[in-house]
Amino acid sequence: MSVNIVKPSILPGFMELTPSDQILFNKMMDTIRKNYEKFGFLPIDTPLIEKSEVLLAKGGGETEKQIYKVVKGDTDMSLRFDLTVPLARYVAQHYSELSFPYRRYHIGKVYRGERNQKGRFREFYQADIDIIGNGSLDIINDAEIPSVIYSTFRDLGFDSFTIKINNRKILSGFFNSLGIEDSTYVLRTVDKLEKIGIENVKKELAELGIPLEKIEKIMEFISIRGSNDEIIKELNKLNIENELFKTGLDELTKVVEYIRLFDVPENNFAIDLTIARGLDYYTGTVYETFLNDYPEIGSVCSGGRYDDLARYYTKQKLPGVGISIGLTRLFYQLTEGGIIKSTDNSLTQVLIIPMEGYLDYAIKASSVLRKADIYTQVYLEEAKIAKKFNYADKLNIPYVIVVGKEEAENNKYTIKNMKTGEQKTIFMDEVLECLK
Amino acid sequence: MSVNIVKPSILPGFMELTPSDQILFNKMMDTIRKNYEKFGFLPIDTPLIEKSEVLLAKGGGETEKQIYKVVKGDTDMSLRFDLTVPLARYVAQHYSELSFPYRRYHIGKVYRGERNQKGRFREFYQADIDIIGNGSLDIINDAEIPSVIYSTFRDLGFDSFTIKINNRKILSGFFNSLGIEDSTYVLRTVDKLEKIGIENVKKELAELGIPLEKIEKIMEFISIRGSNDEIIKELNKLNIENELFKTGLDELTKVVEYIRLFDVPENNFAIDLTIARGLDYYTGTVYETFLNDYPEIGSVCSGGRYDDLARYYTKQKLPGVGISIGLTRLFYQLTEGGIIKSTDNSLTQVLIIPMEGYLDYAIKASSVLRKADIYTQVYLEEAKIAKKFNYADKLNIPYVIVVGKEEAENNKYTIKNMKTGEQKTIFMDEVLECLK
Repeated sequence: MSVNIVKPSILPGFMELTPSDQILFNKMMDTIRKNYEKFGFLPIDTPLIEKSEVLLAKGGGETEKQIYKVVKGDTDMSLRFDLTVPLARYVAQHYSELSFPYRRYHIGKVYRGERNQKGRFREFYQADIDIIGNGSLDIINDAEIPSVIYSTFRDLGFDSFTIKINNRKILSGFFNSLGIEDSTYVLRTVDKLEKIGIENVKKELAELGIPLEKIEKIMEFISIRGSNDEIIKELNKLNIENELFKTGLDELTKVVEYIRLFDVPENNFAIDLTIARGLDYYTGTVYETFLNDYPEIGSVCSGGRYDDLARYYTKQKLPGVGISIGLTRLFYQLTEGGIIKSTDNSLTQVLIIPMEGYLDYAIKASSVLRKADIYTQVYLEEAKIAKKFNYADKLNIPYVIVVGKEEAENNKYTIKNMKTGEQKTIFMDEVLECLK
Repeated sequence: MSVNIVKPSILPGFMELTPSDQILFNKMMDTIRKNYEKFGFLPIDTPLIEKSEVLLAKGGGETEKQIYKVVKGDTDMSLRFDLTVPLARYVAQHYSELSFPYRRYHIGKVYRGERNQKGRFREFYQADIDIIGNGSLDIINDAEIPSVIYSTFRDLGFDSFTIKINNRKILSGFFNSLGIEDSTYVLRTVDKLEKIGIENVKKELAELGIPLEKIEKIMEFISIRGSNDEIIKELNKLNIENELFKTGLDELTKVVEYIRLFDVPENNFAIDLTIARGLDYYTGTVYETFLNDYPEIGSVCSGGRYDDLARYYTKQKLPGVGISIGLTRLFYQLTEGGIIKSTDNSLTQVLIIPMEGYLDYAIKASSVLRKADIYTQVYLEEAKIAKKFNYADKLNIPYVIVVGKEEAENNKYTIKNMKTGEQKTIFMDEVLECLK
């Protein structure tokens, strides 16, 4: 029977990895997961498809335009576009089954129909943690979050990174003190400083109708630099008589004090008054994280404090604080930039190559090795020995065990270190020793 | 600002777990993954959305009716309904980048718009392994697959389960020897034996136009019982002069011989001539796995050998053998049936409860514990001590450390075993000893 061949390809904007890259990706994901779990965050796994009325309860422009609709029967369904909306729905729905403060982590795929461009993905992993309080949530939680970021990125292999911290109450309070009541647009503009530069920020602020003299004051304010303690000192010296500002400054002071206690080195966190975070649900502490040697990547981990997680699904007031790592984009940038290398990855520790007639001996050895928790494959096909070695080489398997007449007769195994080329014929207990 | 409350709920036929259940589910998934990796299977992660022309290249009734379409822009897209079609597409697309035999595992969600009924899910996890050969694949691989099943289900905590094995060539060859050339429908009917009973099978075979005398011979054939060796002996004694039958019998004999070598106990596998597997792409060995104490669950792990994985995407001949575990359904059945219990699950090993004024001392202790790889949470909220203990209790956290004036002054920690109630005040090195 002849069949029509369909060209095998995937949709643009979707990531698919080779086995070697996938091993590396999974390793990163495992590292993140382990760190999240180590701090007491509980796993969650929500459906990728939800009712559109639930996902879009908040409404609003950009999100709705990017959404993937799902069609089957009559229900209006969509693919989730982040992990925060499903969390809000989950907490509201399972409120009575959860213990608060509820700490959850969620690592999963989300979907956004963004314009097709390099390094932007339409299906991507987010790795989120959030701490949700029932009615209230202590500010100390805002100090613990950076310690999770620190621990995670250190375990991912980075040393030089900075968790930038700010508090939106400080910004809003300061703007209020200037007589700017609705500070949302000002915040959004200030947040673009890194991207569009100081002159464009000034221009945009002027377009919002803010008088020049106030713009100068804003510029002066966000130019405050120094160590964490120096910035806090400067902010105190401003003597701004605004309750929101004062609350924000108190919070930031406490967060900085406790971050130290949570064992985050002074080098790895910094107050930055220009960090505002565009998303309008943040109400207090905000975070962005930068790899100091690769600033072009932008923030690799962002988040903040919000007053009311699930307002669209329940009347319960559920304040929280959380962060998100955009894992797919991060992985793409790290590999594209040559910052991490995907070569030499193997989960399998040893390939057993049997000489003709010694498959039985090889299989028995594999069972012994696996029982000792050594990841083992037997080369089961008939092939020339060179081809078998080549296979181990291509899959980066670090050790090869060859067994034939001599080995079987002496109850021994010839083990070769594929990197050094070193080779020896030894008993099983020595093999186990060698591979552990 | 008042907002409209949308009722928080998910779509019918979708599974969502409480934290405690999720921990158990993840543990099962990790166990399966570890076993797959231990046998040298490589990870893969393909997009959940694919082009409809790719997913539906094979065409055919049931699948197309169950598919979820995805709408965004003009491309005809769908959600994957299994992990085999994406594998076929992946192997065809990345053919030159892969090393054969290519062993891959894939654990991921798939979507089928099935009729809504208890225990059937529209979004569910499959956990698959496949070994793909380039042009050919040795029959020994068919013997290794049961050893992966055995190792996996044993690690999942089961002892009494049977991997039932058959070979479709034996069935087809036998039917051919009776003059039944197209055995597909006969195979499908025989496969329903367990479900519909012997009388209905006879009736259906008669409806297919098979003469009574041949039906009796078929019934006699599939009634062959005995130990694995006895069944093989019986099959040999039939002296059926049909090449397909002979090939099948040779294969089955070899598979049984090698399964033993792969260390699968004789109790855990059995030839069963009634196993045919409905799916029409299987061409040789077929597997179904049953938990002996819970036969009502049906097969928990099925699969088989196929001749040509990617015929719709490439002209390369890619034979393979694989299995699939329907994890979501399995988990549902195991928990619903009370076979596994979701209580007492905690990833967090210890909750540190600070007395008023001793948060600093608590936080410092948490850093020490996490550095020793002990999963630790500090209770950061202000609350009465009973509420804090209650929190540990609800989350099944096995140990609580209380710190206050006395502990801080003596550089000690009061640790309580939440199960036994045992409590002692000790130094950190003793705490570490106790928690490891």
